[in-house]
Amino acid sequence: MPLTLFLHSLFCKRNSILRLEMAEVVNMIDSEVFLAFTTYATIVTVKMMIMSPMTAYFRITRKAFGNPEDVARQAKNEEERKKMLRPDPDVERVRRCHQNDLENIVPFVLIGLLYSLTGPDLRTAVLHFRIFAGSRFCHTLAYVLALPQPSRGLSWMVGFGATLSMAYRVLSTVSYF
Amino acid sequence: MPLTLFLHSLFCKRNSILRLEMAEVVNMIDSEVFLAFTTYATIVTVKMMIMSPMTAYFRITRKAFGNPEDVARQAKNEEERKKMLRPDPDVERVRRCHQNDLENIVPFVLIGLLYSLTGPDLRTAVLHFRIFAGSRFCHTLAYVLALPQPSRGLSWMVGFGATLSMAYRVLSTVSYF
Amino acid sequence: MPLTLFLHSLFCKRNSILRLEMAEVVNMIDSEVFLAFTTYATIVTVKMMIMSPMTAYFRITRKAFGNPEDVARQAKNEEERKKMLRPDPDVERVRRCHQNDLENIVPFVLIGLLYSLTGPDLRTAVLHFRIFAGSRFCHTLAYVLALPQPSRGLSWMVGFGATLSMAYRVLSTVSYF
Repeated sequence: MPLTLFLHSLFCKRNSILRLEMAEVVNMIDSEVFLAFTTYATIVTVKMMIMSPMTAYFRITRKAFGNPEDVARQAKNEEERKKMLRPDPDVERVRRCHQNDLENIVPFVLIGLLYSLTGPDLRTAVLHFRIFAGSRFCHTLAYVLALPQPSRGLSWMVGFGATLSMAYRVLSTVSYF
Repeated sequence: MPLTLFLHSLFCKRNSILRLEMAEVVNMIDSEVFLAFTTYATIVTVKMMIMSPMTAYFRITRKAFGNPEDVARQAKNEEERKKMLRPDPDVERVRRCHQNDLENIVPFVLIGLLYSLTGPDLRTAVLHFRIFAGSRFCHTLAYVLALPQPSRGLSWMVGFGATLSMAYRVLSTVSYF
Repeated sequence: MPLTLFLHSLFCKRNSILRLEMAEVVNMIDSEVFLAFTTYATIVTVKMMIMSPMTAYFRITRKAFGNPEDVARQAKNEEERKKMLRPDPDVERVRRCHQNDLENIVPFVLIGLLYSLTGPDLRTAVLHFRIFAGSRFCHTLAYVLALPQPSRGLSWMVGFGATLSMAYRVLSTVSYF
């Protein structure tokens, strides 16, 4: 009996115990597509997270806070305190950009994960991921720097289309109602 | 040596190399449940995404925008520009609906993914997915058309309950602290 | 031929059919790390979901609603109706906390899922999950009870750092552009 087969039977035994716990077992992860997905999904998620410290930065430099306890130390009197509890155009801009990221990047990661499991062509998949990631960086630049339209609209649309295209692929490959 | 076993040993070799990279290997994906999850998760995520162009549609028809650069071309003078930078009840309604989707559909997909990996009964799983998807479509209708309560409240509650039920199943099957 | 091998060849056949459908097959799920991730991810996601009924509770007790149809039954006349359609400080506080959860817990689950698949050391992984979960519970307490700063800021920062640390591990293990 070859060694690989022996290792195999060992592995199988271990598996079959786990199967009892975890029900039936199927693997459908394509290695390279999934590695590419992992890379791009992490990059865009981190990009989305960076909006949080950016909001904090604008809140501090513009002295525009959202909670009374945030200004308790900085403000000297009650009047100054109220003055610092205001919405600021720059802060609200970054927050809208963050919200748009939540509305677009989260669906990308969720659908992209399922898309990666449907075994798409590697080049097509990576193209989708690259286009999406690129479009979101453009979107953030256009939003935060308030570039003239349609720069923001177009970059949003490209990313939206990439996610929809992946969703179409998922639903046309897997339809189990 | 049968062909399947030969293929197997080949497959095993390839796997064992990957194992070195990716640590230990366990599979716990139930085929049919995961296919059903993939279908419903993609549908509700796309439904959530559609709220974005719907917001854009209401913004354009109601002429109510959020950013100065969005109205730069359309508005002729400064006064008209300021007039178009206002919150509109219909736009805000769609945005609240979108926000509610984020607060409910994202947890459904995240918990549903883990739930699918715990090997639930196929019928039970599909029932959860169907109830959730149905409740969210009802919720969106009730919200956007401003149907009288408790239509919106009830449809929200049903979807919320479906997700909680899946979370309970996950935590009662898998508890590793 | 041993039974395990026979079962194996059966299993392999079933797999190879699925492979045709689902493209190439690689497994990279580390059992224990993934079980731990499943547990903590579900707990923090459920914690995030609980902000929804908490918002509803504050809306009802503070009589501060967001939609005209929500107050249609409760309010007797038009004046009272308008009075109940107002933002309330406590409601807005819970909503901001919910929004912060969306901005932090969702990235944690998305990146944590990919992180669990890179085969990290079990102790390190569980430490990340515990620190994140703990920091989010502290954050919610600090936010809802309006504890003096920097309690909220620090607890946010710890959770944010845990997620970033996992993202760093993912990108340093897997980089496929």
